[in-house]
Amino acid sequence: VPQAPAPAEPRDRPIGVFDSGVGGLTVLHELLVRLPQEDFVYLADTARFPYGPRTRAELERFSMQIAEELVRRRVKLLVVACNSAAAAALPALTQRMMQTTLGVDVIGVVRPGAIHAVAATHNGKVGLLATPATVASGAYREALQAADPHVGLTEVACPDLAQQIERATFDDEVLASVRDACAPLRAAQVDTVILGCTHYPLLRPMLQRTLGPDVTIVSSGAPLARSVEHVLGARGLATTRTTEGAYRFLTTGDPAPFADAGTRFLQLPLTSVDQVTLNPALEVVA
Amino acid sequence: VPQAPAPAEPRDRPIGVFDSGVGGLTVLHELLVRLPQEDFVYLADTARFPYGPRTRAELERFSMQIAEELVRRRVKLLVVACNSAAAAALPALTQRMMQTTLGVDVIGVVRPGAIHAVAATHNGKVGLLATPATVASGAYREALQAADPHVGLTEVACPDLAQQIERATFDDEVLASVRDACAPLRAAQVDTVILGCTHYPLLRPMLQRTLGPDVTIVSSGAPLARSVEHVLGARGLATTRTTEGAYRFLTTGDPAPFADAGTRFLQLPLTSVDQVTLNPALEVVA
Repeated sequence: VPQAPAPAEPRDRPIGVFDSGVGGLTVLHELLVRLPQEDFVYLADTARFPYGPRTRAELERFSMQIAEELVRRRVKLLVVACNSAAAAALPALTQRMMQTTLGVDVIGVVRPGAIHAVAATHNGKVGLLATPATVASGAYREALQAADPHVGLTEVACPDLAQQIERATFDDEVLASVRDACAPLRAAQVDTVILGCTHYPLLRPMLQRTLGPDVTIVSSGAPLARSVEHVLGARGLATTRTTEGAYRFLTTGDPAPFADAGTRFLQLPLTSVDQVTLNPALEVVA
Repeated sequence: VPQAPAPAEPRDRPIGVFDSGVGGLTVLHELLVRLPQEDFVYLADTARFPYGPRTRAELERFSMQIAEELVRRRVKLLVVACNSAAAAALPALTQRMMQTTLGVDVIGVVRPGAIHAVAATHNGKVGLLATPATVASGAYREALQAADPHVGLTEVACPDLAQQIERATFDDEVLASVRDACAPLRAAQVDTVILGCTHYPLLRPMLQRTLGPDVTIVSSGAPLARSVEHVLGARGLATTRTTEGAYRFLTTGDPAPFADAGTRFLQLPLTSVDQVTLNPALEVVA
């Protein structure tokens, strides 16, 4: 397996970020805003997109495989920019990563979004839009309870929304999905809605129109980027470079549509996208 | 000239919104978020896009023609969702509109954005990105001075950016334009940047990455929507309907590309787009 040349200094190594597809680019965007001097390696497991309908066992296995690939590329920190994977696999992944010789910290998207929502709500009624896997995991409910047990949560599982966003045609069918998803949140009079899937910020205009002006929409990207900044500082791992960092992309699927979608969604010219084959050693079930 | 059937009650008439193209849809979006019960008629003068390089005399004439068309369609309020037109033509347009039998108020995008920027800045250094026409008009400088004479303004005229956004390919050429435009703002250490063209919010991710995390980006849409809500309330013109309002679109150019661009940019399925021919009576010069 080829290895990217890595700088000697741990603080100058890249940050690894992964997702099932283009959705996690909304998280990478916030990382680039806050940490422009850092290098990033983003891995999109598009060959196995979507993660939403996957089981916990599958998501743990996929996450381990991706983490191994990124650690092999000498990342100094691992960001799980996929809610389904973070909700299902974060404990197992964290345990595994701390056992590597590098002792790589793992930061996932669930907790920063949950804490931000608790801080944002005025009426104590929070809504969650997420994939079926994320809702089923109970990870957001747990994170909210830990932050404030008196905040009520209304959860809506959206089976199709991530794929509809990936197709990038914002027609009446998508609008109908959005209205269906938001109806229980409006009925519950939530004043804060967590976007529990990294694709959903791409649909923010339609969501804000459907939810109305008095609902605060919370996504995980910006609070996660602050967490990453804090952990780099605490570990002495923030780069000391003052020039702009580099970013590169890996995908398990076809690089061309990934590059197109990424450029369109995030206005980020994705020039360096390489296909990667993950080590199937962990692939113990078919 | 055909007239749309208008309800008898002034408060149930639509709000008229106009721009040179799709950019003003970022303003319409904020109006739909804040005033979902209102009806809207949006006129895009795509046949004469872009307005950026136009003279003040041209912009006054174009604005008068469009206002006549919208008043003929019985709008209760006129929103100038184009910075170039608002900067050049608002005084003349306001005077003309108050002379009509309806006494239609005119709200433009410049002042709400300027006031919002004065409220947002901490270091008193504000930047402006706008078309050459808007910068040349001095309208933002004037509005900022009126709100707070001690706030400093760094203005950057961007000749190509609106057209580049309209083409919707976010490549290295656009990135180079954005970097060139932001360089003087970074050098001046502004902490707040006004997007003085309604296209620019569509480029917000790239702009935020280029300006960095500590710069507040201000666009006119949301503060303008609040102004509209206030004026409707003060005039007793807010609709009393509680059901969702309707919106329709007029364009002086080809409806198909306008509908495509609008749907793509604002996630707003534009089903009703009609071509309109403006009354050239005001067209005193060729």
